[in-house]
Order: sequence, then structure tokens, then C-alpha cells
Amino acid sequence: MRSNPERRLALIDGAIEVLATQGARGLTFRAVDTEAGVPAGTASNYFTNRDDLFTQIGGRVYERLLPDDATMARSREGTPDRARFTELMHELVQRVSSFGSGQLALLELRLEATRRPELQAVLTERIRRDMDENVAHHAASGLPGDATSVTLLQLALNWLILERLTLPGLFSEQQVHDLVEAAVARVLND
Amino acid sequence: MRSNPERRLALIDGAIEVLATQGARGLTFRAVDTEAGVPAGTASNYFTNRDDLFTQIGGRVYERLLPDDATMARSREGTPDRARFTELMHELVQRVSSFGSGQLALLELRLEATRRPELQAVLTERIRRDMDENVAHHAASGLPGDATSVTLLQLALNWLILERLTLPGLFSEQQVHDLVEAAVARVLND
Repeated sequence: MRSNPERRLALIDGAIEVLATQGARGLTFRAVDTEAGVPAGTASNYFTNRDDLFTQIGGRVYERLLPDDATMARSREGTPDRARFTELMHELVQRVSSFGSGQLALLELRLEATRRPELQAVLTERIRRDMDENVAHHAASGLPGDATSVTLLQLALNWLILERLTLPGLFSEQQVHDLVEAAVARVLND
Repeated sequence: MRSNPERRLALIDGAIEVLATQGARGLTFRAVDTEAGVPAGTASNYFTNRDDLFTQIGGRVYERLLPDDATMARSREGTPDRARFTELMHELVQRVSSFGSGQLALLELRLEATRRPELQAVLTERIRRDMDENVAHHAASGLPGDATSVTLLQLALNWLILERLTLPGLFSEQQVHDLVEAAVARVLND
């Protein structure tokens, strides 16, 4: 196996795009080589098989969906009240929706996980860690709401983003906005 | 095109199982024939192409995910209070989760819809109608909560079911139960 880390990342990022645009059906080493703009045969030097490729995408796509340090730092600014919480959730929905290929690739991976035990283990561990981190980050922020508020928001907003990405005609921008407002207001339960 | 309605349904139901277990990648006319236990070549007499097959699955899978008349009648029994609403939502999560192949097939279809405009139109229309019917049914039931309660619950519970089906190790049965309780209590906002 080759180990140039930059090239490996470029191949995995290419694989995310292939997965999002062509589905699991289209994810071949050849398609990844083409998407990453590298010579044919490169991907096969970096991944032992498709299973390995899926597992490595599972680790990477989640990393790219998380907020970067600047976004995290900004999220701690301002008065930690309900209005600020709502604003942060609007930003979250915009940010995740704007990396649509990552979100779609992650859904393809979730479906593949029903058939690939190793991928299922990687995703379960990764998503559990992310949920725990979200709860801890929220608790430290001083924002209103408890751990249940954070989990329920995550459930509702994830499905809202899924609707937006797969059936864009279902909700208008205004409806998405209003649902985010209502979701925050109601899960706070104060 | 052949038009025996029972055989068409058997083929589409077979296609739902193929989609859930093998993914969009595995959905071929041959696999559908095998799953439905009919002679090779049958599916190709009922569907003009894979696109047509996807679109017809889109109409059918949703129909099978809806509660039957007996379930709907039972949902109108009892005192329409918060406890009854919570009970109905627990039943909903169990019912939809128990037709896991339907729910997984629907997710495969949503992802395919990003690449198939006709399927996207069918699903958008179908899901919008279902959401409207849910809101109307709820309003007529006398149960607590408004249209926003119904929509937010649908978002949160759909994602909860998705987690359960694709990453069954993520939440325990107890956590699923507690999240349903909390979701109902908070979206009611009374």
C-alpha cells in the first residue's frame, strides 16, 4: 500500500464526490482516479478493496462535516441566550447543507453500513463521539437547554437537511427557517 | 407492457426487498425476478427501464409504510391527551422500524431521486401529501399540539428510525424510548 498522506486524502475526497453524485453503484477505483485527477491505477495502490475504501471514507467525511476551529470559536461569542442558540442552529443548517456532497455521501455510507460490519462499527463510534462532543460543548457554552435538547435538535435538523438535499421542492427556504426557529424554541422547554 | 396487477405488485414488492438488502447497485431486473420467484425475463415485461422501476417503487413503498385502516381506527380510540399521543408515537416508531426494508428502500430512493428527476417529483408529491394528511388527521383527533408539533415530531422520529436501522448500536432500546417521550413532551410546548 502507498502512503503519501496528501494523495490519500485527495483520493478519499474524490471518492466522497463520486459517492454523492453517482451513488455507491458508481464508486469504483477507476471513478475515484478520474475524480481525483490522478493516473488510472492509483486508487488501487492506496486501498486494499472497496470495503477498505468505504471504511476510510467513513472516517474522513465526518471529519469534513464538523465545524472548523474558527467556526467553533465564533460559536462561543455573544450572549449565550435563546436568540444566539437559534442563530447558531440556522448557521449549522446552512453550513451542513452547503457541503451537500458530504451529507449525501454519509447517507450512502449509512446504507452501505447495513451490509458492511466494519464500516458500521466505524460510523457508530464516530457518530457517538460526535454526539457526546456536541452535548459537552453545549453544556460548557452556557447556552440554554440540556443534553436532551441537543440530541432532539440533532435528530430534527438532520432530517430537515436530508429533505432539503434529496427533495429540494418539499420545503421552501422560509419553511426551513421557520422550522429551525420552532425546533429550538420547543426543545428548550423552558 | 404486461398488466397483471397482482404480478406487478409482487415484482415491485420484490424490488423493495432487493433495494433494501443490496442497495441501488443490486437493483437489476434479474434480481427482481429472482426475489419475486418468477421466470427470468418477467420484470422486463412490466417496466420499460430501471428509471420506470424506481418511479413505481416510489409510489408503492410509501403506500406500504402508511398505517392500515385498523391501525388508523385504533389511533382514534382513547382519551386524546398527551399520554395517548406519546403512546401513539411509540407505536409509530415500532411499526415503521418493523418494516425496515421499506424504510431502507425509501432512503435508497431518496438518494436516487437526486439523479432521477421523475422519481424526485413522485416522492416530493407523495411525501407532501402524507405530511398534509398527518397534520389534518392530528387536527381532527383532538390530540394536543399544533401543525408544527406534528412536523417537528416527524422530522425527529424519522431520523431516530434511520439511526436505529442503519447503526443499531448507536442508541439502546431504552434511549429510543426516552427520546420518543422527550420529543412528544417538548414539541407540544404547552
